[in-house]
Amino acid sequence: MATHRVVVVGGGFGGAQAVEHLRSGDDLEVTLVDRRNFHLFQPLLYQVATGALSPGEIASPLRGLVKRRKNTRVVMGEVSGFDLAGRRVVLHEVAGGGARELPYDTLVVAAGSGQVYFGHDEWAPLAPPLKTIEDALEIRRRILVAFEAAEEEDDPKRQAAWLTFVVVGGGPTGVELAGQIAEIARDTLRHDYRTIDPGTARVILVEGADRVLTTFDPRLSTYAKGALEHLGVSVELDRLVTGVDAAGVTVKPKDGPAERIDSHTIVWAAGVQASPLSRALAHEAGTDVDRTGHMTVSPDLTIPGHPEVFAIGDMVRVSDGHGGTLPLIGVAPEAMQEGRYVARVIRDRLQGKGEPRPFHYVDKGNLATIGRMRAVGEIKGLRLRGFLAWAAWLGVHLFYLTGIQNRILVFTRWTVSFLTHGRGARLITGEGSGIEPGSSGTDGGPRDGA
Amino acid sequence: MATHRVVVVGGGFGGAQAVEHLRSGDDLEVTLVDRRNFHLFQPLLYQVATGALSPGEIASPLRGLVKRRKNTRVVMGEVSGFDLAGRRVVLHEVAGGGARELPYDTLVVAAGSGQVYFGHDEWAPLAPPLKTIEDALEIRRRILVAFEAAEEEDDPKRQAAWLTFVVVGGGPTGVELAGQIAEIARDTLRHDYRTIDPGTARVILVEGADRVLTTFDPRLSTYAKGALEHLGVSVELDRLVTGVDAAGVTVKPKDGPAERIDSHTIVWAAGVQASPLSRALAHEAGTDVDRTGHMTVSPDLTIPGHPEVFAIGDMVRVSDGHGGTLPLIGVAPEAMQEGRYVARVIRDRLQGKGEPRPFHYVDKGNLATIGRMRAVGEIKGLRLRGFLAWAAWLGVHLFYLTGIQNRILVFTRWTVSFLTHGRGARLITGEGSGIEPGSSGTDGGPRDGA
Repeated sequence: MATHRVVVVGGGFGGAQAVEHLRSGDDLEVTLVDRRNFHLFQPLLYQVATGALSPGEIASPLRGLVKRRKNTRVVMGEVSGFDLAGRRVVLHEVAGGGARELPYDTLVVAAGSGQVYFGHDEWAPLAPPLKTIEDALEIRRRILVAFEAAEEEDDPKRQAAWLTFVVVGGGPTGVELAGQIAEIARDTLRHDYRTIDPGTARVILVEGADRVLTTFDPRLSTYAKGALEHLGVSVELDRLVTGVDAAGVTVKPKDGPAERIDSHTIVWAAGVQASPLSRALAHEAGTDVDRTGHMTVSPDLTIPGHPEVFAIGDMVRVSDGHGGTLPLIGVAPEAMQEGRYVARVIRDRLQGKGEPRPFHYVDKGNLATIGRMRAVGEIKGLRLRGFLAWAAWLGVHLFYLTGIQNRILVFTRWTVSFLTHGRGARLITGEGSGIEPGSSGTDGGPRDGA
Repeated sequence: MATHRVVVVGGGFGGAQAVEHLRSGDDLEVTLVDRRNFHLFQPLLYQVATGALSPGEIASPLRGLVKRRKNTRVVMGEVSGFDLAGRRVVLHEVAGGGARELPYDTLVVAAGSGQVYFGHDEWAPLAPPLKTIEDALEIRRRILVAFEAAEEEDDPKRQAAWLTFVVVGGGPTGVELAGQIAEIARDTLRHDYRTIDPGTARVILVEGADRVLTTFDPRLSTYAKGALEHLGVSVELDRLVTGVDAAGVTVKPKDGPAERIDSHTIVWAAGVQASPLSRALAHEAGTDVDRTGHMTVSPDLTIPGHPEVFAIGDMVRVSDGHGGTLPLIGVAPEAMQEGRYVARVIRDRLQGKGEPRPFHYVDKGNLATIGRMRAVGEIKGLRLRGFLAWAAWLGVHLFYLTGIQNRILVFTRWTVSFLTHGRGARLITGEGSGIEPGSSGTDGGPRDGA
């Protein structure tokens, strides 16, 4: 029997689990393609954006994850499209340069999602999303620079604008970010400044629905709102953002005139859009995508007409076989279970075990943290809130973090942060990190850090 | 008595020590000015460049260091010059925007040094220096991308160029970098690739003098060269770099024709140039700077004619009072002792204790590491090499690292690296991190890391 070639696109939660469970020993040759050279533990990315963790502590090099699997190789490159008839993945460009194609017998696409600006892509530079390491470092830079700027600003109105932080979107990411920014202002930076009191900072969470954390029980949403307000966050519900510019945002309440918020620090955590590869697959398969670019896959996670092509994770919806879709919300455990399911289906097919039962998500629970010792959770129908949910959140995230080293590092950071109320990684780096434009780089200028 | 205002420019080793020892209780008001918001432990920067440590693990926010000192404030801004007659520091631009001046009674300038390209500043983008966090991440990116590119390259000649790494300069930084790159290739990445053997990578250390580590005893230079060669580094002595371009470097041996080395990964660790603020001070004081931009300060570290202005660290030379200068080599302990000395002089003056004895450097030793369990050191006339020097190096660096948290984090990383031969922070981030230009950012493209 010839070697069966599996190409997995994307090294996120879904793709990494698929690769992990495509054991060698089976007559398989696995190729993992990703634009980045690392797996990112995205649920903790907001902690990088708020200086609690360093990027390297929530990322693991992909080659390191598969180094002992001789049947698995990694290609660092960007997928531009698919030739399903010819069974090839087309790469835009790879490390060595030039376009390239990867032939497959089975294809698994797990390319994830991006942020959507509802037709206003021009807002992205003004209100960055939180999807990549670079996004997180940029948001961290903006938050910290805002306090620096406020410290040196004499005009009270301009100072207030620097001390106003707007988070758009009341899902888990928005709630976690808003809570952390409030904690930074009231707690971490408390003694750091001499002209401003960081505790006077306004943190505003804007949500279009009538509650935050809409994927949770409404009672937990109420608790979360209260906990956020306790931290000093203004939770503004039933409000849509209608404008973003360099000086602030315009917000339109459901009933009432538009309001203006002056702010230089806006983060966008509202609205998810499937990877363009979802549309590319749908096009090849002759089906369509929904409003947010998600195609719907069959109950066995294959795409219509192509049993050899799987698409998983938050780039797709999953048909329930009865005209609807499974009630999945785009979190990591879903993608991980899908990845493992796909690996099992591929192995079963090779062993001639026949066709699989439909994918079924085992919901082990859902957690969102708000701040120091405050979180909400739903675990097997049980509603948790407060300290217990927070402890569960800590344990689950440490457990799922990749690699023993990262677990020790993150545990250390969390312990020190908890004891000292500090955030050790609050560095201003990257573009404009010296405040003035073009200060970084190799200009031979003064190196204060020498 | 009115409050005595001290302005310290630069939060590196010298400036941070000066601030640390200007205790409150004395009737002092201290302002620390830096372009960056953190103190950087520069001796470990090469470990960030080689993926062994994360930036946040060797940096400490300046505001955190002085948060409990109510007499000390931090200004994040860039110094453009001095008005010594008017006793003011002129800032280019600060966080709030606009130029600004800081009046002082005593001024301490500790602005460090940058890399010098000997009149070829156009080489800087091709052969980056290792001075800032951003430099280190860029070098890390280039090293890792080179292996990725080699893996995907079919042409043997082009593949060899990707697998050739050139480090220019055989001082401690160059030696440490070359040793680490060789270890990455032969050890860390050993099982990571499928088409290339990273162990075949060439690492070339180019040095103009006839030995590496010229500030050490020649016998230690010989040992270091042998240890580097044992790691697989080609040590090329008596050679000057005469050209750098996108495809490699041209090297001219002392006796012999120029040689060409094809390489896409070149790091510049040769030649230090004082901060331009050294020249600015010299100009104001009516003296001059040497070829590398260093002015010479008096034996008490003040600048000629201005007993209220100190300049310290590797941006200056220190007069020995007899027409020569002290034999300082620009390392952290020198700057730290100078910072403490200046703080004491300022306090003594305020207490009317009269003028100080000249600055005297207590040389506690000098260490440079080469690789796993190999280092060299000179401690009080004693020459150390091998395991003992390496153990001393580890201990000293952990001890001097700022903050208990960073010590735990670095200790953890080092322990895991030592045991697993891994380097956990080998992430490709920043510009072009997805290989193809412009792939990162907020374009809503596929997010493989989702």
